[in-house]
Amino acid sequence: MQEFLIDSALDMHLHLRDGDMLKLVGPLTSKTFSAALVMPNLVPPVTTKEALLAYKERILEACKEDEFDPKMTLFFKNDYSYEFLKDVKDEIIAIKLYPAGITTNSETGVASMDVEVLRPTLESMSKLGIPLCIHGETNGFVMDREKEFMPIYESIASSFPDLKVIMEHITTKDAVEMLDKYDNLYATVTLHHLLITLDDVAGGMLNPHLFCKPIAKRPEDRSALLKAALSGHSKLMFGSDSAPHPKHKKECCGCAAGVFTSPIALQVLVELFEKNKKLENLNSFVSLNAQKIYNYKPKEKKIKLIKKEFIVPAEYSYENEKVVPMFAGESLAWSIEG
Amino acid sequence: MQEFLIDSALDMHLHLRDGDMLKLVGPLTSKTFSAALVMPNLVPPVTTKEALLAYKERILEACKEDEFDPKMTLFFKNDYSYEFLKDVKDEIIAIKLYPAGITTNSETGVASMDVEVLRPTLESMSKLGIPLCIHGETNGFVMDREKEFMPIYESIASSFPDLKVIMEHITTKDAVEMLDKYDNLYATVTLHHLLITLDDVAGGMLNPHLFCKPIAKRPEDRSALLKAALSGHSKLMFGSDSAPHPKHKKECCGCAAGVFTSPIALQVLVELFEKNKKLENLNSFVSLNAQKIYNYKPKEKKIKLIKKEFIVPAEYSYENEKVVPMFAGESLAWSIEG
Repeated sequence: MQEFLIDSALDMHLHLRDGDMLKLVGPLTSKTFSAALVMPNLVPPVTTKEALLAYKERILEACKEDEFDPKMTLFFKNDYSYEFLKDVKDEIIAIKLYPAGITTNSETGVASMDVEVLRPTLESMSKLGIPLCIHGETNGFVMDREKEFMPIYESIASSFPDLKVIMEHITTKDAVEMLDKYDNLYATVTLHHLLITLDDVAGGMLNPHLFCKPIAKRPEDRSALLKAALSGHSKLMFGSDSAPHPKHKKECCGCAAGVFTSPIALQVLVELFEKNKKLENLNSFVSLNAQKIYNYKPKEKKIKLIKKEFIVPAEYSYENEKVVPMFAGESLAWSIEG
Repeated sequence: MQEFLIDSALDMHLHLRDGDMLKLVGPLTSKTFSAALVMPNLVPPVTTKEALLAYKERILEACKEDEFDPKMTLFFKNDYSYEFLKDVKDEIIAIKLYPAGITTNSETGVASMDVEVLRPTLESMSKLGIPLCIHGETNGFVMDREKEFMPIYESIASSFPDLKVIMEHITTKDAVEMLDKYDNLYATVTLHHLLITLDDVAGGMLNPHLFCKPIAKRPEDRSALLKAALSGHSKLMFGSDSAPHPKHKKECCGCAAGVFTSPIALQVLVELFEKNKKLENLNSFVSLNAQKIYNYKPKEKKIKLIKKEFIVPAEYSYENEKVVPMFAGESLAWSIEG
């Protein structure tokens, strides 16, 4: 039977939520991933050292059976002092910036993306070597939001050449092209944006389980993302943006944005890279690139994928929480051994 | 109190469905509209004289309290004979063409849009003076489907210069521009495509009640449609494409496409034309243009709109059928007197 070894898989953009949802989804990542960059958009967002450490404890508790290293992030604020950031530096891997109101639990994000407004915190981060992760969307027309954000990436990357700036969950050809323009600009891409376009969300029936932010774009955008990922582009990392919402908030009128991919990400990535005859680049995409960009050495954790059918569960549940994964009920070509 | 008289309102693109849904939605059109062009995409579609006359009877029965003239259409087929069309001509106002599988109940539509394949039926229609209504979308990427269809409109319009061709429910700047290129090309536009863009469907939370086919497009498309409608463009008619689906089929995973606007269309149109200081063109848009294009003289039916708040019901129901209108629960500035 065909096999493939993934070595210390890293999910560089993950939502673990809190409470029962954390207990439900935490182990679905920690089982197979060596580490993950955990997003701080709780309610309220993670903005203090105490909240950060307490959240990390809850994550480790939820994933206790597994070797798993949650890499923590702070929610960006304009008024973080240099002293605060210096004190918290060793507890975080990055700071995540959200424009206000741009996605789930981002209401207290920054109101202005003007570099001069952001400068105090960004200068401290640059001096301390703390990377900046950005949800890069404007409030414009939904299909243009990421493209319109490109000048802001350029402005930050050029104003702070020593700051590592990560364009999170990129979805467009424009963002892929931007990657090569600035040495200090990097990106994550999700599994679902390598696979779907707006057609899958709203081209046939409306599919709320594939509704996410940023919204899936055009076929030529997906092609550009896929080409970069398959090539093992050294500035592009896997970040699932796996974003669980309770089932009832997805299958209702006015559904929440987010695709839940943690339990199926590695299986589908192996299938995708195998189909495109690029398996030799998969470990770069899911681990090595991130190790270099974040200067992080994960504990070794080898996961064996085997070419054997895996039927994705219709849903995962814990207590009263239920969450529906991507490809729910469908058959995948690869499964995780054991 | 400010008033406005609408004279013999015509809805030139309407889905009345059948059974209890017809009994529910029929009176919501017949109360205020003088006549409507009724779409034939039942299951099975309306393709025989018997089915046509029986459906018309059921419509009149459902709307019996009102003066209302349902103008019937046949579902386009490649193999309609000249004799059949001649026989049925006086019972129909047009024939509606659906590319196979393009929208609700269109599975038996035409498999090819090649003019040579369509020629026999189109030649008969041209000779008999029967207009052709088209759902003009390709199977391409959802945002491009209408634009990609433009060469097919051009091919049909130029091949059959005596055939009146109506581009149904246009949603793009491209279609508005196409209107002026061929004398025999006309169009309908819906209420919702004058009001919304993709942002309203998927820019915030996902809104299944605004999910429709063709999908709402970009801001510049809406602007072009609105400008043409407000100007009273003589080749553009109001056609609501009001498309009721049972509430449970809209608020579920994999929701059906269609916006239900019949009971609020006139109120919102008056508000829209008033706000843009173009009330003098509203009767052209909702009646006079269609009268000229279809050479049809409706019975007189004056509807008085008054500038008085109207709270849109959260839903309309009949027996077990429930349908949610556009602007459900919201306040409109105008209401219908009486």
